This record gives sequence, structure tokens and C-alpha cells, in this order.
Amino acid sequence: MGDKKIFATPQDVENAFYEALECGDLDLMMSIWADDEEIVCVHPGGSRLLGYASIREAWKQIFDHGNRLEVAISQLKTVSTPFAVMHSVLEQIRIRNKSDVMAPVAATNLYVRGSMGWRMVSHHASPVPPLPTETPDDTPKVLH
Amino acid sequence: MGDKKIFATPQDVENAFYEALECGDLDLMMSIWADDEEIVCVHPGGSRLLGYASIREAWKQIFDHGNRLEVAISQLKTVSTPFAVMHSVLEQIRIRNKSDVMAPVAATNLYVRGSMGWRMVSHHASPVPPLPTETPDDTPKVLH
Repeated sequence: MGDKKIFATPQDVENAFYEALECGDLDLMMSIWADDEEIVCVHPGGSRLLGYASIREAWKQIFDHGNRLEVAISQLKTVSTPFAVMHSVLEQIRIRNKSDVMAPVAATNLYVRGSMGWRMVSHHASPVPPLPTETPDDTPKVLH
Repeated sequence: MGDKKIFATPQDVENAFYEALECGDLDLMMSIWADDEEIVCVHPGGSRLLGYASIREAWKQIFDHGNRLEVAISQLKTVSTPFAVMHSVLEQIRIRNKSDVMAPVAATNLYVRGSMGWRMVSHHASPVPPLPTETPDDTPKVLH
């Protein structure tokens, strides 16, 4: 895989993650993940993917499909500890050159600090009801 | 909220979380969450819930609805750091007294260690496609 970037902060990793997603850049995408069997990726509506090789293969398929995406990130919430930082964000994903905004997605991103700086270890993304939704009487439709 | 339990390990928190879910025990459920504005809960198909009060209200509505659930957990994957531990699991949720197993759910659970022991800070659950392979040796691992 050649050179690995060093990311000094979780936000740097997250910026690179969404840049790779928008550009369809597989090398950049895979540079932000920890090279580990325990990493986890759940795409909206997709299966849970485990480990670097499976996660790479899924991104490759997504990027090979060819649609270029625009992703707007909002409403960042953060939980920080010395060696692990969680970012919870809302994503508004749009296929470039199409006006339809796809359903908003909630993403939980987890970053861990190792000897090579910060890396993503988990990305869990799933569709949420259309915004605005942050009102108390917006009853979630839930299975449990 | 009265007395708060002390949880010595992330697995203790997770066990209590799923016990509370099965029993519909709101006090137990809320005892496992960090009492914080930054905590996040995404129920399958639901909106992203932020903060202790919103998360409590959603669980109250779920438990008031009255269905008793059985939840089988499998395929635990763990990322551990000194003050934060992630558990990724698959949930098979069944409404008690009904034979239909609902769609499997992937859950990403994040626990943080504070002065009062370990607490949940994030639960992100979303439906995943039915599993092609569930083998008996994918049973949950005991961490401690």
C-alpha cells in the first residue's frame, strides 16, 4: 500500500475520509483506516463489514460504480478520550449532477490514536428520517 | 435518578444494557448511560437522539409500548483503548410470544471510563440484510 499518511487529529482523519468519499479516491480512503482485522464499516442499508480487506473491497465496488457524490456534514457531536474519539455527524449525500438530495444519514465515526497517528476504526452509517428532526415530539420509528 | 450503579467493565455495561432492553426496565437502562449532553442514540430507522433527556424519553416510549423483546447477541468485535471501548455486535431481536425473528440489526456501542466506572456514550443500531452465514462458533466472546 506504500506510504501511509500521518493524521495528527481525528478531524484530519474525518476530513480525509469525506474527501475520499467525494472524490472516489480508494487509496486516500484506505489510508485513513487502521490496518486491522477488528475495524468495522456499516454502509447505509448494507451488511456489517469486518477487517481491512473486506472494507477495502466494498469501497472499491462503490467507487467503481462511478457516481460522484457530494456530502454535506452537519451537527457534529464529539466524545473525546486520550486514545479514542467519536464523532457523530449527519450526512446529506447527493449524487453530483442530480438535484435530488438523498435521505439524510447518521454516521458514528470512531478514531483511535496509535503509533502512526489517528486512524478510523469504525464507520457506522444508516438512514434517518428527513430533517428537521431534533424536536422532542418527533417520535422515532423504532424496532427496539 | 437516585443511586447510580458502578460498572467495572464495558462488558458489564453491555450486559446491563441488553438486560434492560429485554426487561423494559427504564431505570436500569438509564443507569448505564453517561449523564451527558453529548451522548448519542440511534434506534433502527429512527432519528439521531442527543443527550440524556432525549434518549430517556425515547426508551420510555419504547418500553411503554409494551412489547417484551428477546435479543440474541452474536459476533462481538471489540476495539479497546484505556478510556474508551467499542463493541460492535449483531442483534437478533424477537418480540416475545411471536415466532417471527425480526431483521438482524448491527449495533455499534461505545463505552467510556469515568470517575464512576464505565458508561455507554453511544448506541447506533440499524437493520442489516439477513445473514448468509451464521455459524455456531460465532458465539459471543467473554472479555473478562
